[in-house]
Amino acid sequence: MFTWGVNAGTMPRMSKKPRKNIVVIGGGTGTFTILSGLKRYPVDLTAIVAMSDSGGSTGMLRDELGVLPPGDVVRCLVALSESDTLMRKLMDYRFDSGNLKGHRFGNLLLSALEKTAGSFDEAVEKASEILRLDGRVIPVTLDKVNLMAQVGTDIIRGEEQIQMAKLNGSLKHIWLEPVGRANPKALKALRDADAIIIGPGNFYASLVPNLLVRKIPETILKSKAEKIFVCNLMTKVEHTKDYTVADYTAAIEKYLGGPVDTVIYNNTTPDASVLKRYAREGDTLTSWKDLPKGRKLVGADLVAKRMVRMASKIGTPAVESSLVRHDSARLAATVAKILNIKPKR
Amino acid sequence: MFTWGVNAGTMPRMSKKPRKNIVVIGGGTGTFTILSGLKRYPVDLTAIVAMSDSGGSTGMLRDELGVLPPGDVVRCLVALSESDTLMRKLMDYRFDSGNLKGHRFGNLLLSALEKTAGSFDEAVEKASEILRLDGRVIPVTLDKVNLMAQVGTDIIRGEEQIQMAKLNGSLKHIWLEPVGRANPKALKALRDADAIIIGPGNFYASLVPNLLVRKIPETILKSKAEKIFVCNLMTKVEHTKDYTVADYTAAIEKYLGGPVDTVIYNNTTPDASVLKRYAREGDTLTSWKDLPKGRKLVGADLVAKRMVRMASKIGTPAVESSLVRHDSARLAATVAKILNIKPKR
Repeated sequence: MFTWGVNAGTMPRMSKKPRKNIVVIGGGTGTFTILSGLKRYPVDLTAIVAMSDSGGSTGMLRDELGVLPPGDVVRCLVALSESDTLMRKLMDYRFDSGNLKGHRFGNLLLSALEKTAGSFDEAVEKASEILRLDGRVIPVTLDKVNLMAQVGTDIIRGEEQIQMAKLNGSLKHIWLEPVGRANPKALKALRDADAIIIGPGNFYASLVPNLLVRKIPETILKSKAEKIFVCNLMTKVEHTKDYTVADYTAAIEKYLGGPVDTVIYNNTTPDASVLKRYAREGDTLTSWKDLPKGRKLVGADLVAKRMVRMASKIGTPAVESSLVRHDSARLAATVAKILNIKPKR
Repeated sequence: MFTWGVNAGTMPRMSKKPRKNIVVIGGGTGTFTILSGLKRYPVDLTAIVAMSDSGGSTGMLRDELGVLPPGDVVRCLVALSESDTLMRKLMDYRFDSGNLKGHRFGNLLLSALEKTAGSFDEAVEKASEILRLDGRVIPVTLDKVNLMAQVGTDIIRGEEQIQMAKLNGSLKHIWLEPVGRANPKALKALRDADAIIIGPGNFYASLVPNLLVRKIPETILKSKAEKIFVCNLMTKVEHTKDYTVADYTAAIEKYLGGPVDTVIYNNTTPDASVLKRYAREGDTLTSWKDLPKGRKLVGADLVAKRMVRMASKIGTPAVESSLVRHDSARLAATVAKILNIKPKR
């Protein structure tokens, strides 16, 4: 099989036309979704991953072992892995009893590798080799950062806490502590990119934390790459209440410090039954009645009809879900059309 | 690189003369030692591993997850792995804080694989692939067995407890509960073997438990293989007080139900300083003044001058140790001479 990424040095190029370098910025489920879709295209994929996760298995490992947060990196590794199903299921296995309860195996792998290899960077390299990666996963920073927010006069520490906090209208400032210095590999990937895709992803948990890392926004803006923002499908009442596509775009551009070239947004309403659960919380479908001016706009039906098999669900039967998620294949097809890329034969 | 074992089906044989099948029976440190030595010879190596371990990280995993004991299997996998040092260090990494404290990464790998693959057998296969095994590791049974002993009128349950109990003179009976049925792969390996080596290893923790599994002793005795016993270097006051080479051989043959062909024993006294620590406990060097009759006897200087790098110490500098252990290279050379095998060029 033809593999790329970690093996690029030793494998012959099969095609004369160089493949396009696509960099996806994010970290959570949305990034898993877009990577899973784009891997069906003949492109060189790089995921730049936020490093401020502080919840769940990842949070426990940060607290107990003093490691960098493995969770989002592992999900991207699984998305880009060419390994068999068992290996991918293994990475996603969550221990369900005893002292290990709640820990995901992939997270333990990355943390144990960090301890034995001596650095998170080498751990990611080795995990990429073990998982036979077709692509690259790059932590946005190798500093041990915490996401911080000032909301009114309160200071909130940690992504998990910020996720639950009501930021709407009262978010004064959001930052990383200590200031995250960019991973040089991330900067290089951004400079070499043909396309940089921000999203999809939780706005304050997966997207913004990447843009808070020093030099990342400037490097994105200076890159020759087409800058694409994949707008969130839904609003979140505590964070982005009533945001339209224009509002989301303005918000991401605020953290980016300049304009994106292209905005991909959903323009179809899912079944009312699916939206009901969100409505109870006050979350709504992102309206596309208000679109940003002066950007290339690409609207499409992007809502998954069935829940995609996410990293957390690999190996279990795909289940219909009431969650509104991006459809992996249609989102990737939308990106491919913008970049004029044909699927792998 | 030329690999064997799991890849045998896809790799061409490099030599016309078939390599000898050597089966090593044991489980603990001694098995790691002999496998590490023999892998330098052009032989097909199989380790048959006891499955009654109930202590440490392995014991915790058995109790908490209901898995089969991974520890000894993992040590043998590491011994036969062709992977790089980092991968071998990773397998041996022991978490040192938080809820994970005391767990060895390799054990977590095998247990998580057992949960995701659905069986311990498939878990070992997959781990063999991940670790690029040159050889095979076969759990002696796939039943969840506990080592049991009747000592006087007391019943002791669990290898860990039996290890600490005084068996000398009062051991009435030792058995597995439930009765372990042999792994068919173990029986096949024994039938196909050119040599079957019992030991080195802790007598009641690593060697005897293999021979308590149904059909294992008969299959060894019926095999065309040369049956070799590697006699213990030391006596253990609670278990094998004052045993000579003849006593150890008689004891193993009792559990085997018949004679071995060859006995390998140490015939050199280490420095007095090294023996002092043992003497305090009542443990002594196994005497070779009394040798078994009617067996081929091969005495050699088999005591490691320095502690070998054991599974638990990979990656840390080899340290001089006051433990009396078999020397990996000299033990393997002794076996090779008996079987007329030349080292790999």
